Amino acid sequence: MSGTPAFKRLPRAVREQQMLDAAVRVFSRRGFHAASMDEIADDAGISKPMVYAYLGTKEELFIACLHREGARMTAAIAGAAAPDLPADERLWRGLRAFFGFVGGHRDGWAVLYRQARGSQPFATELAAMRNRLVEVVAGMLDHALRARGREVSATDLEVVAYALVGASESLADWLADHPEADPERTAGRMMNIAWLGADRLLHGASWEEGRAPS
Amino acid sequence: MSGTPAFKRLPRAVREQQMLDAAVRVFSRRGFHAASMDEIADDAGISKPMVYAYLGTKEELFIACLHREGARMTAAIAGAAAPDLPADERLWRGLRAFFGFVGGHRDGWAVLYRQARGSQPFATELAAMRNRLVEVVAGMLDHALRARGREVSATDLEVVAYALVGASESLADWLADHPEADPERTAGRMMNIAWLGADRLLHGASWEEGRAPS
Repeated sequence: MSGTPAFKRLPRAVREQQMLDAAVRVFSRRGFHAASMDEIADDAGISKPMVYAYLGTKEELFIACLHREGARMTAAIAGAAAPDLPADERLWRGLRAFFGFVGGHRDGWAVLYRQARGSQPFATELAAMRNRLVEVVAGMLDHALRARGREVSATDLEVVAYALVGASESLADWLADHPEADPERTAGRMMNIAWLGADRLLHGASWEEGRAPS
Repeated sequence: MSGTPAFKRLPRAVREQQMLDAAVRVFSRRGFHAASMDEIADDAGISKPMVYAYLGTKEELFIACLHREGARMTAAIAGAAAPDLPADERLWRGLRAFFGFVGGHRDGWAVLYRQARGSQPFATELAAMRNRLVEVVAGMLDHALRARGREVSATDLEVVAYALVGASESLADWLADHPEADPERTAGRMMNIAWLGADRLLHGASWEEGRAPS
């Protein structure tokens, strides 16, 4: 870290972030198709040719929004789930960061995430983000297992991580649709669902047909 | 059930199903945008004007495909999870039916489901299907809880059902992308993940910060 800010370079970076902020707001308000570059330029207080010059077409701008929001979210989750904590604390902090992020960006989640899910090229970008998240979760599980002297196949880890990420995404959708719901409480619910099972999985338990504890 | 088939009406119903079969095949092969009504008519062995007359535009045809596949899947799951079985058996049979369905229709799942997820009006249709599935799962959980003399709020049931459906959808995506993966084994993995936790939730357990069994 230098004590002297790079005055010559800063304005461009700041301006780009302002444009992305404006773009996220407008996409959230209008949806991708109805959003216009005029409104985004207006909202950012920058001329439309400047927006095009900095960030490209509306599609490229949307991908840049997805990318920045995704990176922020992944960083929030990975940062919260510090590796030196017990597995359940890491999961809890990760979930709290995730639902806190979605709860703080309900509109953005609904538009950016749901729109991106089904249409190319956004779906590819989103799949890459999900894969990074699956890797983070699989890494956490692997770490917790090794701490207990256990090891499972990469496929088993991947499958459990997919299920946890899928369950969390589904609850994030639920949270985005329920403005009255509390993000922290939703994280707690997901924690209960995930941990009670994960804890037994980590101990090597499994369900067997006709032998369920009831 | 009458012993005499309704000859006058049967041909139209049969023909519609043939067109839907052809449409599912072509949409699966080409994707929604690249699929042409010519190819669908060809595949069904029916003239193109007839396809339009019976099932409407390409969009309407895609919705009809979604609707039929969704109804088949929901019926397979609900039929497998008979109410007089113990909760874990019902969940297991439901999951086996779900992953069996996806495993038997990998291409269809990938195209119909993934395309429908992000674009209107398909996303609305899909959300309605998911809500029906969430209701089925919440009903199963409620039934299992009442059998144990317990009751939880409708919101708690809904949240757990959302998480289970989301986790299963995520694993179904994984299954669709892994042609070598066995549907039954995938259902078993999901059962382990879901049941080990659900069983403890059904008994009233919950995770508490700093008090995790390790």
